[in-house]
Amino acid sequence: MKFIEMLERAQKKNSSLLCVGLDPSLERLPDSCRTVSQPLFAFNRALIDATADLVCAYKPQIAHYSACGAEAELLATISYIHDNYADIPVILDAKRGDIGSTAEKYALEAFERYQADAVTVNPYLGGDSLEPFLKYEEKGVVILCRTSNPGGGELQGLEVDGEPVYLKLAGLAAASWNKNHNILLVVGATWPAELARVREVVGEMPLLVPGVGAQGGDLVAVLGAGLNSRGAGLVINSSRGIIYAGQGEGYAEAARQAALELRDAINCHR
Amino acid sequence: MKFIEMLERAQKKNSSLLCVGLDPSLERLPDSCRTVSQPLFAFNRALIDATADLVCAYKPQIAHYSACGAEAELLATISYIHDNYADIPVILDAKRGDIGSTAEKYALEAFERYQADAVTVNPYLGGDSLEPFLKYEEKGVVILCRTSNPGGGELQGLEVDGEPVYLKLAGLAAASWNKNHNILLVVGATWPAELARVREVVGEMPLLVPGVGAQGGDLVAVLGAGLNSRGAGLVINSSRGIIYAGQGEGYAEAARQAALELRDAINCHR
Repeated sequence: MKFIEMLERAQKKNSSLLCVGLDPSLERLPDSCRTVSQPLFAFNRALIDATADLVCAYKPQIAHYSACGAEAELLATISYIHDNYADIPVILDAKRGDIGSTAEKYALEAFERYQADAVTVNPYLGGDSLEPFLKYEEKGVVILCRTSNPGGGELQGLEVDGEPVYLKLAGLAAASWNKNHNILLVVGATWPAELARVREVVGEMPLLVPGVGAQGGDLVAVLGAGLNSRGAGLVINSSRGIIYAGQGEGYAEAARQAALELRDAINCHR
Repeated sequence: MKFIEMLERAQKKNSSLLCVGLDPSLERLPDSCRTVSQPLFAFNRALIDATADLVCAYKPQIAHYSACGAEAELLATISYIHDNYADIPVILDAKRGDIGSTAEKYALEAFERYQADAVTVNPYLGGDSLEPFLKYEEKGVVILCRTSNPGGGELQGLEVDGEPVYLKLAGLAAASWNKNHNILLVVGATWPAELARVREVVGEMPLLVPGVGAQGGDLVAVLGAGLNSRGAGLVINSSRGIIYAGQGEGYAEAARQAALELRDAINCHR
């Protein structure tokens, strides 16, 4: 099954546009996780079991694992999702970008080694740098467009022929690069007006929207600006707002509650 | 010692602007390397021993290790350089880029876990996304500017107020982001005219120049366009042209010969 179809099925099955970011930091884990041999995986596993009926995707961010040499725990996390919740796609958030033979290696890392269903990539090196990812027709390629950080506009917002770089990029992605219909774009929840402009350019293409919650994005504005013609087409990510919703040993139940509330808040405004 | 000072000392000591890219692929290794427990490291170690008096830096590209789960071999390679050739800096080619707390994790990965002296980063997310790297004052931060691939201009070459994005970026890097004087830029050898424009904007800043050799960059044009006022300021990288200069068991000696020729060819035109 192709990634976007898998994603849309999960969205329907769980009535959810919510994606949970699995970005654990060792120093923030409850004691019960820290004392086991794979603390990040133990933390994630409980979160996954608590939320798998409420989400349309999981998005582990790779730096949280590679910073501490926990590649095995990232692998275990992704395998656990595939083995136990096979309907829920995994987006590996890696923001990779390189050229030719090196991009091939990054695609191997994401799709073969980690068996991710989709990967985030950085478009600064141009369309040819993305081809090694895009040629995996069954996989999703989630391209950074307008990021959620305060300085995101420093390059992305530069005006080119009267329109900003991120909108040029959205046009290239939709019109030139998307031959295999496996592209999604990242647009931060902190910029709803920009999200609306991207939606105009890309038609029905799914957009991954980080920045709700800890980063302060306005949910109602995001939905108004970003939904496609079918009231879908968004993957709304929350990481810290879900995984650290509770302190201590009740963290998984607290995460479930936070995920339920956010999923339902999204659905109220669809 | 700060990275740029370390780099310049190595350049003087070895009379060299040459950087060797340590980008091994398992399928291209000679049989003697494949049968040992750490094949990539074994290959690299012989290359390093054969070239350490001829280079100003080594640049391992991380995807060549992460694609096949060889993090330990990347660690061993970098440690081997530090332990045996402490004067030669290591640039980890990772092209990372993310925001806030995640960028912090990537900086930990490069500088703490792998003990790299410098790391390559992608500027698409803006200056604030680079701060977690730049705050390591002793480390080098090598920002993508104009990449060597054919499609590198698709975004980087878009015209903003009459100048291309990559030149705007060079201006931002030189004037706003370089408070700790630890920035370098990447400009591909395949674009000497663009290299000259970047040099005009950034003053004496060192530039990392990939694309000589396998990618076809013209060495004489690169030196004419890129040298700074002191006949230096360039780190000219070759990967495949050096590490695969020979076939089979004589690969290290062939690599030494190729490195010697390229170093001397560079010095002829300085």
